[in-house]
Amino acid sequence: MRVGLDVGGTKTDAVAIDDAGTVVSRVRIATGWGPDAVVATVFEAVRALRGQIDAAWPEFRSVGIGIPGQVVPGTTRVTHAVNLGVDELDLAAAVSPTLGVPVHVENDVKAASLGGYALHGATGRMGYLNLGTGIAAGIVEDGVLMRGRHGTAGEVGHISVDPNGPLCRCGQRGCIEALAGGRSIAERWGRVSALPVLDVFDAADAGDPLATELRNDLAAGAAAAVRVLVLTVDVDTVVLGGGVTNLGTRLLNDIAADLDASATASPFMRSLSLSARVSLLPAGSPAAALGAALLGDARNTEGVLAHG
Amino acid sequence: MRVGLDVGGTKTDAVAIDDAGTVVSRVRIATGWGPDAVVATVFEAVRALRGQIDAAWPEFRSVGIGIPGQVVPGTTRVTHAVNLGVDELDLAAAVSPTLGVPVHVENDVKAASLGGYALHGATGRMGYLNLGTGIAAGIVEDGVLMRGRHGTAGEVGHISVDPNGPLCRCGQRGCIEALAGGRSIAERWGRVSALPVLDVFDAADAGDPLATELRNDLAAGAAAAVRVLVLTVDVDTVVLGGGVTNLGTRLLNDIAADLDASATASPFMRSLSLSARVSLLPAGSPAAALGAALLGDARNTEGVLAHG
Repeated sequence: MRVGLDVGGTKTDAVAIDDAGTVVSRVRIATGWGPDAVVATVFEAVRALRGQIDAAWPEFRSVGIGIPGQVVPGTTRVTHAVNLGVDELDLAAAVSPTLGVPVHVENDVKAASLGGYALHGATGRMGYLNLGTGIAAGIVEDGVLMRGRHGTAGEVGHISVDPNGPLCRCGQRGCIEALAGGRSIAERWGRVSALPVLDVFDAADAGDPLATELRNDLAAGAAAAVRVLVLTVDVDTVVLGGGVTNLGTRLLNDIAADLDASATASPFMRSLSLSARVSLLPAGSPAAALGAALLGDARNTEGVLAHG
Repeated sequence: MRVGLDVGGTKTDAVAIDDAGTVVSRVRIATGWGPDAVVATVFEAVRALRGQIDAAWPEFRSVGIGIPGQVVPGTTRVTHAVNLGVDELDLAAAVSPTLGVPVHVENDVKAASLGGYALHGATGRMGYLNLGTGIAAGIVEDGVLMRGRHGTAGEVGHISVDPNGPLCRCGQRGCIEALAGGRSIAERWGRVSALPVLDVFDAADAGDPLATELRNDLAAGAAAAVRVLVLTVDVDTVVLGGGVTNLGTRLLNDIAADLDASATASPFMRSLSLSARVSLLPAGSPAAALGAALLGDARNTEGVLAHG
């Protein structure tokens, strides 16, 4: 069995999978703040999974950890995990001696790409587009995650698709993330809300002009990311995940409508049947945790791998 | 030895390479118009190469053909090669029986990507960005061309980067090709010229406002393509080729200046050192012909290959 953890800003999702990749156990616990508490969270999650599992099951063979930060290519070093209060941490070095098994560390969106591929039963080349506070993608082919020497494969959120678009926190104008990222939408909406993107959708339905503009920008940004993935790496399908996809078909219909508008304008775009290639990850899927567990499988590696 | 042909709209460039991939012979002949004349051009080019080569050299083992049209994935069928007067043609079926060796067929930009990788002595993952009448790219990793089931890998020319940009002949607005493609620049310039892009550069230097706008758009479109390649597939380097690159360092400096402007605005973009990763293919390089010859080497294939 293998363990996978998705260490999120508030909750940590943990799964144990058998050799066929089936999830046999899942727990969710609160995530601690700061490096020491994150390490303690990892131990607690592994212990909780072990407690759920019949003693007759084999031992855990590896632990994979998805984390919302940058993982320095070729290492298990996490940097800039600001939502966890972690500036820099070699997570495998911190937990592997105690756990006694190989520990793999990956950016959470990249891990979710691998998990989404498995959950979706995908074949060929798939793009996983994460629509959360920020926007990033992962590309998986035949179950193998595409990385790159610099770790920027899938960083489509900072491609500018409108020189006159909103200012992105990265400093550029009109980035896909500035148009469609949850944080950017919430800031531009400017009203206090627990679920700002949901509010924007509801207010747009009620005819609010700013909400309508923001909702259109969200669809335009996400649709642009789909086009970039298809026209650059020829992904067969694009699976959408991340917090914003809790909006479900309301969001999917908006994105499909934007893709269909470019298909109406352009015979070339029409030939790509883009809206038919896009689907949502089922709500509540343990995509990132499952993908983190799969990091322990040598078949899911590509060249230099970030493992301990 | 292997033969590679770059069947262009006016000229066909042909090379023979030895087993080390070194070009041992090169000829250039005029290309005929229409399917029959294109087939005759292939025979003439192979005959001309054979005539140049010492009888002591081994026989040709394969012929690869790069052609400016779509090659249906998994086949040797060329479609929409409008500059050659070819609507549809199975080129391998037409020439292989006479040539008596395996014939491989590939889109010319894809072939040039493979050849550019070899000529550039590249390692890792390289993007080849072809700036010609149209704009397209090829992605090569460890000498292997990235394709895709639908043949749209590298079709970055039709990614829109400005919703208010010029109308593209594909029907969308603000496509990279509408901003930076040679045909689009010439149409927007609107003056009769043998070398319209060169005219635009000279007129911009002389202060012409329209020429300045077009020249800026060219740099902006090409720079956008570089960003898309790095932020989607994490290419280590981007090599520029195609007719427009005859402008040399005047063009390269413009593109670098655009990349540097986004690096100034954005610490994230600055961390990518984009302008330092871009270079020009040397003028007159037989990139597409060499790449076509390399198609005959099994090491350069990825999954389903378009060969006879």
